Amino acid sequence: MERILVINGPNLNYLGVREPHIYGKKTLADLENELKSLGEKKQVQFSFFQSNHEGEIIDKLYEADQQFDGVILNPGAFTHYSYAIRDAIASISKPVIEVHISNTNQREPFRHHSVTAPVTQGQIIGLGFYGYQLAALSLLHLIREETHEA
Amino acid sequence: MERILVINGPNLNYLGVREPHIYGKKTLADLENELKSLGEKKQVQFSFFQSNHEGEIIDKLYEADQQFDGVILNPGAFTHYSYAIRDAIASISKPVIEVHISNTNQREPFRHHSVTAPVTQGQIIGLGFYGYQLAALSLLHLIREETHEA
Amino acid sequence: MERILVINGPNLNYLGVREPHIYGKKTLADLENELKSLGEKKQVQFSFFQSNHEGEIIDKLYEADQQFDGVILNPGAFTHYSYAIRDAIASISKPVIEVHISNTNQREPFRHHSVTAPVTQGQIIGLGFYGYQLAALSLLHLIREETHEA
Amino acid sequence: MERILVINGPNLNYLGVREPHIYGKKTLADLENELKSLGEKKQVQFSFFQSNHEGEIIDKLYEADQQFDGVILNPGAFTHYSYAIRDAIASISKPVIEVHISNTNQREPFRHHSVTAPVTQGQIIGLGFYGYQLAALSLLHLIREETHEA
Amino acid sequence: MERILVINGPNLNYLGVREPHIYGKKTLADLENELKSLGEKKQVQFSFFQSNHEGEIIDKLYEADQQFDGVILNPGAFTHYSYAIRDAIASISKPVIEVHISNTNQREPFRHHSVTAPVTQGQIIGLGFYGYQLAALSLLHLIREETHEA
Amino acid sequence: MERILVINGPNLNYLGVREPHIYGKKTLADLENELKSLGEKKQVQFSFFQSNHEGEIIDKLYEADQQFDGVILNPGAFTHYSYAIRDAIASISKPVIEVHISNTNQREPFRHHSVTAPVTQGQIIGLGFYGYQLAALSLLHLIREETHEA
Amino acid sequence: MERILVINGPNLNYLGVREPHIYGKKTLADLENELKSLGEKKQVQFSFFQSNHEGEIIDKLYEADQQFDGVILNPGAFTHYSYAIRDAIASISKPVIEVHISNTNQREPFRHHSVTAPVTQGQIIGLGFYGYQLAALSLLHLIREETHEA
Amino acid sequence: MERILVINGPNLNYLGVREPHIYGKKTLADLENELKSLGEKKQVQFSFFQSNHEGEIIDKLYEADQQFDGVILNPGAFTHYSYAIRDAIASISKPVIEVHISNTNQREPFRHHSVTAPVTQGQIIGLGFYGYQLAALSLLHLIREETHEA
Amino acid sequence: MERILVINGPNLNYLGVREPHIYGKKTLADLENELKSLGEKKQVQFSFFQSNHEGEIIDKLYEADQQFDGVILNPGAFTHYSYAIRDAIASISKPVIEVHISNTNQREPFRHHSVTAPVTQGQIIGLGFYGYQLAALSLLHLIREETHEA
Amino acid sequence: MERILVINGPNLNYLGVREPHIYGKKTLADLENELKSLGEKKQVQFSFFQSNHEGEIIDKLYEADQQFDGVILNPGAFTHYSYAIRDAIASISKPVIEVHISNTNQREPFRHHSVTAPVTQGQIIGLGFYGYQLAALSLLHLIREETHEA
Amino acid sequence: MERILVINGPNLNYLGVREPHIYGKKTLADLENELKSLGEKKQVQFSFFQSNHEGEIIDKLYEADQQFDGVILNPGAFTHYSYAIRDAIASISKPVIEVHISNTNQREPFRHHSVTAPVTQGQIIGLGFYGYQLAALSLLHLIREETHEA
Amino acid sequence: MERILVINGPNLNYLGVREPHIYGKKTLADLENELKSLGEKKQVQFSFFQSNHEGEIIDKLYEADQQFDGVILNPGAFTHYSYAIRDAIASISKPVIEVHISNTNQREPFRHHSVTAPVTQGQIIGLGFYGYQLAALSLLHLIREETHEA
Repeated sequence: MERILVINGPNLNYLGVREPHIYGKKTLADLENELKSLGEKKQVQFSFFQSNHEGEIIDKLYEADQQFDGVILNPGAFTHYSYAIRDAIASISKPVIEVHISNTNQREPFRHHSVTAPVTQGQIIGLGFYGYQLAALSLLHLIREETHEA
Repeated sequence: MERILVINGPNLNYLGVREPHIYGKKTLADLENELKSLGEKKQVQFSFFQSNHEGEIIDKLYEADQQFDGVILNPGAFTHYSYAIRDAIASISKPVIEVHISNTNQREPFRHHSVTAPVTQGQIIGLGFYGYQLAALSLLHLIREETHEA
Repeated sequence: MERILVINGPNLNYLGVREPHIYGKKTLADLENELKSLGEKKQVQFSFFQSNHEGEIIDKLYEADQQFDGVILNPGAFTHYSYAIRDAIASISKPVIEVHISNTNQREPFRHHSVTAPVTQGQIIGLGFYGYQLAALSLLHLIREETHEA
Repeated sequence: MERILVINGPNLNYLGVREPHIYGKKTLADLENELKSLGEKKQVQFSFFQSNHEGEIIDKLYEADQQFDGVILNPGAFTHYSYAIRDAIASISKPVIEVHISNTNQREPFRHHSVTAPVTQGQIIGLGFYGYQLAALSLLHLIREETHEA
Repeated sequence: MERILVINGPNLNYLGVREPHIYGKKTLADLENELKSLGEKKQVQFSFFQSNHEGEIIDKLYEADQQFDGVILNPGAFTHYSYAIRDAIASISKPVIEVHISNTNQREPFRHHSVTAPVTQGQIIGLGFYGYQLAALSLLHLIREETHEA
Repeated sequence: MERILVINGPNLNYLGVREPHIYGKKTLADLENELKSLGEKKQVQFSFFQSNHEGEIIDKLYEADQQFDGVILNPGAFTHYSYAIRDAIASISKPVIEVHISNTNQREPFRHHSVTAPVTQGQIIGLGFYGYQLAALSLLHLIREETHEA
Repeated sequence: MERILVINGPNLNYLGVREPHIYGKKTLADLENELKSLGEKKQVQFSFFQSNHEGEIIDKLYEADQQFDGVILNPGAFTHYSYAIRDAIASISKPVIEVHISNTNQREPFRHHSVTAPVTQGQIIGLGFYGYQLAALSLLHLIREETHEA
Repeated sequence: MERILVINGPNLNYLGVREPHIYGKKTLADLENELKSLGEKKQVQFSFFQSNHEGEIIDKLYEADQQFDGVILNPGAFTHYSYAIRDAIASISKPVIEVHISNTNQREPFRHHSVTAPVTQGQIIGLGFYGYQLAALSLLHLIREETHEA
Repeated sequence: MERILVINGPNLNYLGVREPHIYGKKTLADLENELKSLGEKKQVQFSFFQSNHEGEIIDKLYEADQQFDGVILNPGAFTHYSYAIRDAIASISKPVIEVHISNTNQREPFRHHSVTAPVTQGQIIGLGFYGYQLAALSLLHLIREETHEA
Repeated sequence: MERILVINGPNLNYLGVREPHIYGKKTLADLENELKSLGEKKQVQFSFFQSNHEGEIIDKLYEADQQFDGVILNPGAFTHYSYAIRDAIASISKPVIEVHISNTNQREPFRHHSVTAPVTQGQIIGLGFYGYQLAALSLLHLIREETHEA
Repeated sequence: MERILVINGPNLNYLGVREPHIYGKKTLADLENELKSLGEKKQVQFSFFQSNHEGEIIDKLYEADQQFDGVILNPGAFTHYSYAIRDAIASISKPVIEVHISNTNQREPFRHHSVTAPVTQGQIIGLGFYGYQLAALSLLHLIREETHEA
Repeated sequence: MERILVINGPNLNYLGVREPHIYGKKTLADLENELKSLGEKKQVQFSFFQSNHEGEIIDKLYEADQQFDGVILNPGAFTHYSYAIRDAIASISKPVIEVHISNTNQREPFRHHSVTAPVTQGQIIGLGFYGYQLAALSLLHLIREETHEA
């Protein structure tokens, strides 16, 4: 059974409370439950990690390189300036897919540029919580195809 | 049964031949077949349109507003300068999801900025042909949920 | 009797439907009727052309150079990037007046710059459908004065 | 009978003398006479104010808010940097239309950007003295329509 | 009795030692004592938190949202790049006032821009330690007025 | 008894009328009365000056250098381009504190940069009319401390 | 016998009429006749295509990839923004040489940058109609050498 | 006898007091006396005007066009943003030489760019009060040569 | 015996695994051993610290100010945006030398600019692990010379 | 017999050795021999000059103005910053054609801009050594036509 | 008797021939003769040096530091990029005045910025050959005053 | 015995005299003596070259490619604009290490960017004369290791 780590960056602990006109009213726990349901259906095990600390996210990415088959990463605001997280993603060999709940291209200019995107596998942007499910499907697609190809 | 229009912009007619180190060896027909298979599984009808002409894509978007439930749009290079397509997307009321086969953030700087993204529902980038399937799932999710909510 | 060509660029076919909080609820047909009324009053014949295709607008400008006394041009989004239309305007010898229905200076930054403006006779911006009437008056003023002076 | 104030900014006192290859040979008095003739025809009363002092123009705009139905403003070079005039226009509730005699888009780069345009009703650019007449017609159109609608 | 949290960001632990020609010779403890004195006079309880860790400041802001009536925040160098702290401030509903001891506008260009300022209530800059007292007064003014108005 | 001059720049004469969603409904007279009350409490004499004329503000700053102990300056829109006022502030030796009623960092980009800030003592931004009271307290703090130190 | 396609982009249909101080008085037909003469001398067959439509030029490039040995392309104003044409050039395997009649580096700033140049074989700029002949010679040089080397 | 007008812009009234490490300790009266001495020696009559008001400087330039043979202008901080003064200089036909006491290229970046310089005869920068004498000599050289040539 | 602290920033824990085409195959332990050998030869004691947490690096710099004679700092990606680390370096009085293993000037544009460099003693870039040894020699040179001079 | 001077700028002495993946394996002597052969065929005499010294190239251009009928110039890296060479080209009256062996538009950004191009007759870029032959043909075309026209 | 060195940079050897609409028809010899005449009148000895070689100008500046009392420098195009000449000027202790014959502010944008100006004593721009005489007067004023003061 | 060439660029001939607060009081001869001492200790032969002429430095780099094992290069101000020297470094195969005596990152903005750095082996910045010794050690480390590896 594949193992996927879901990393949520800063301020995502406050989902449901934080600016609900942008992020909706569902909480982080809701998100995790949706993914667990998907996990049962698709035979994949999800683990979850949320942190407001850039360093902890970096540490976790290295841990993921050892213990997981892929990573879904919503770097939150770190998307726009954390070259340290970028370097961590580039350093590990497991696929990372970047997810944003809101359509960042519709918001403040600083949110239009992602410093992490160039070293991820791809991005899913603006599709709400459902974007995490799509990212999971995409990781499975990648992992299982690659296994077949190998 | 929902109807989804898949619009592929300039140069995507040459998929499989064009820069295969970036876009892979599968053709546009392969892509369409993959989506048709998904259509059968998910009970959704796909139509396909490819054009190298900006004006034709705009005309088609207005047609889609009348005859389809959602649009998957890969604007190709128009992504980076066609404010006319942007205005067409903003003018219609059906959801549009933007897809890019390659991870545009890894390529030339002019590909890092999308003028159409701010008026689409969301973007799926760098996940290959599979990105179209994810976009389709996401449109269904949107359409069916909204119907329920309405 | 003078002949004036009114060219409306991309997405203006959707006037009345498209973002009515910006463009109002009147349609392209309404606009044309208003100008026809003015035509009768001022003894000038209006012809109308709308297209979402940059190339067709360029072709039409050359046609206008042969068959009309002046052009009212709303290039829509092409205003902001079509150097090809700019070159066509610069190539012909009939006066062209640029019109924008909305006050483009109040909207997204990309709408603040017109690449066509430097080669037109002048611009009328933000005065709604009435701007076309003013453009027509101005063309008549130009044409008739120039005739007198010649 | 409606009352319209025509404000001409710095250096327009020198019309007819100043760079006649750009502004023509007619003087400010000529301009005012043309508008007075229009006023008689259209049943509207014009008042005129010219100043090279930014502060006087601001003061006059507040006066206009009390005593006039609309303002035609040619801010001259203040167009390009007077955020103070911009704020005054935004503070008053009477419609203001910005006029430029020459096609500013054909001249030095600093003249391509107007800091006042976003808070005016609209702009008329490059149509010579006749642009003031068009602005007057447009104000009447606005004022009389609005009255009817109210 | 109102509760105000004072958060001091990176390097403010070294006040009194750090570049005394810019920040003066008084220490963080001196600052806290000055505020405690004010607290007694104004009947408000101050708590203090200093950290060189961005993540801890974010965590603390969420804590403040639950347990305090307002926040005085000197983000130190995080002012200039921590979009994560910005998002935390925007996510909570208690008023935050940004304070800088030195006049950041007189220093290196990177200090002239605050990424956090747009989501705070206001800023007090360049008024030394006394700026914290002014921020406290202002928070009290806000909290007590709002209470009265509510 | 200390003497403080309060200078309000362009358009602040229209407080209460001007864009009340930004500046509130209280007038310039209200502001002056609030400060007079503070003056009685704190034993300081306030004088007031408002002008829409850059030159008058400069002249007044030189007058202040002779006759006042400090200046509270809200330069209005001049904040963003009047290098002449900046030079006047730098030329005089009395402390000047810059005040903005609204949080300029939340508004149009041109309002994010102050050309006067680097030569003032400090800035108080976004705290409404109360910001003037804080500026007054800060000036008193400066003046009285400096006197003691001298 | 080698086959070379000559593609002329927008507004080149008006050669001889359009801005003759820049482009000279000779027409597109003159240009084609000059190349036909060269073709007879050098044993190469020229075909000609002119269009004001970006999409038609893209379509033609794909056709050229099947039916010609090389392409001489003057993209006109599309040079400066058509990333779609750029992608088409990059997608095909036949050599493309870019030609500009006038010295674009002497004209407006927007003409100094070519988005197509990086994916062409080379550029010939400012040498008038004769530049097309040089491009033809260069294509022959490339094609015949490559054949020899192969 | 030639007549030369010397216009000193904002803050130059405070020479001798203002930032003496930059501008020296001599006053505006000292400057005027130096020029008067030169005037006697060179048979030229100097008049002097200083103002902190942009509008007054513009008005004075028009007056100079009628009553003087040349102008020495130190626009002070207006150098860097007063396009209105620039237009006035361009509108008049008498030669204007721009003078700066300090070497503006050594100071803040905003002082490195002069918006008035392109329409003046020339500039003399950084040579202290003596720069005014050089400007006077240069005007005389221009006027007397031109007279001879005419 | 002098004490030197070697601080390695984010992702340097993964040396030898991380992008070995850039950083080589040797590990952080190898690096530390090389420096220990040097330490024995040169009579200097090295301590080592690696962290992916910006805050921990700042804390460590303050510790170093108390307990070490100099610091060798490879800030990793923090080099390019951590103004907080910059402020910490500027706050302490012990010399800090910045080291980069790879030639950052050959890599992505964001790596060409160091925000920490202006407050360090100097930089050693692109010389691999050996760069740390050179930094150590340079610190010893500084410390021992300064001691002699004092 | 016409005389053409071929000037090769810095580092072109190392052709054949220097970055052969970009410039090929043929040497400067090879290039000169190719041109001599052409010279015999076309009845034109070539002279050659190579220098790594900007000043020598300028001196040579003045010499060419006296002794040659035209210049082929490959300014090497001087292309991108030598305004002094630009001024020399502009000062002489003989035609100069700029040649680049590689397609500079495909390389580092600094190579995309030529400061000399605006004052040359035209440019030939990316066509290898053969570009020099094309430049020679073009010069002959210019010189001989002009002679006929004169 | 004071000794002044006049250094003319690249292309000034061609004065009188080079772009006479900008630089006039007088030659470098004429300029030198004018200065010699002034030298006799003012009791100062002029030496002259012209070079198209940046390195020779630098060498000459060091020579001037030993053998002259001041330098008049027209760096020609080097003005705009020669940081090496800038460093030479900054390294020597004799005063250097920068002269430009034409008003560089009226010409191409690259001529608006001088990299040497910040380290010279001052600049004289746009006053033709007479500017050298003014520079000489200014140097004498500086040298003789300083001598008196010393 | 290895041979290392030390190239010092413009103005370094004036070391000890030139801006001693930046570069110290030791001369170029002192620097060379320090390196000679190191040479004896490390069994390496140093040669020295200083020039203010860009072309001579380029010529010397080619000479070094034939006769030396490595180069220590302080390009002085050429660091910031000499793309010609950059190309020379890239053309030769011997390792080049760039040295700057002062910490260029602390000085004027133009000194923060090196155009030569990307093609050198590495840089040593801000460590005074000692930086040359470190560069020498590093070259030896490279040369000797490489020899061993070969």
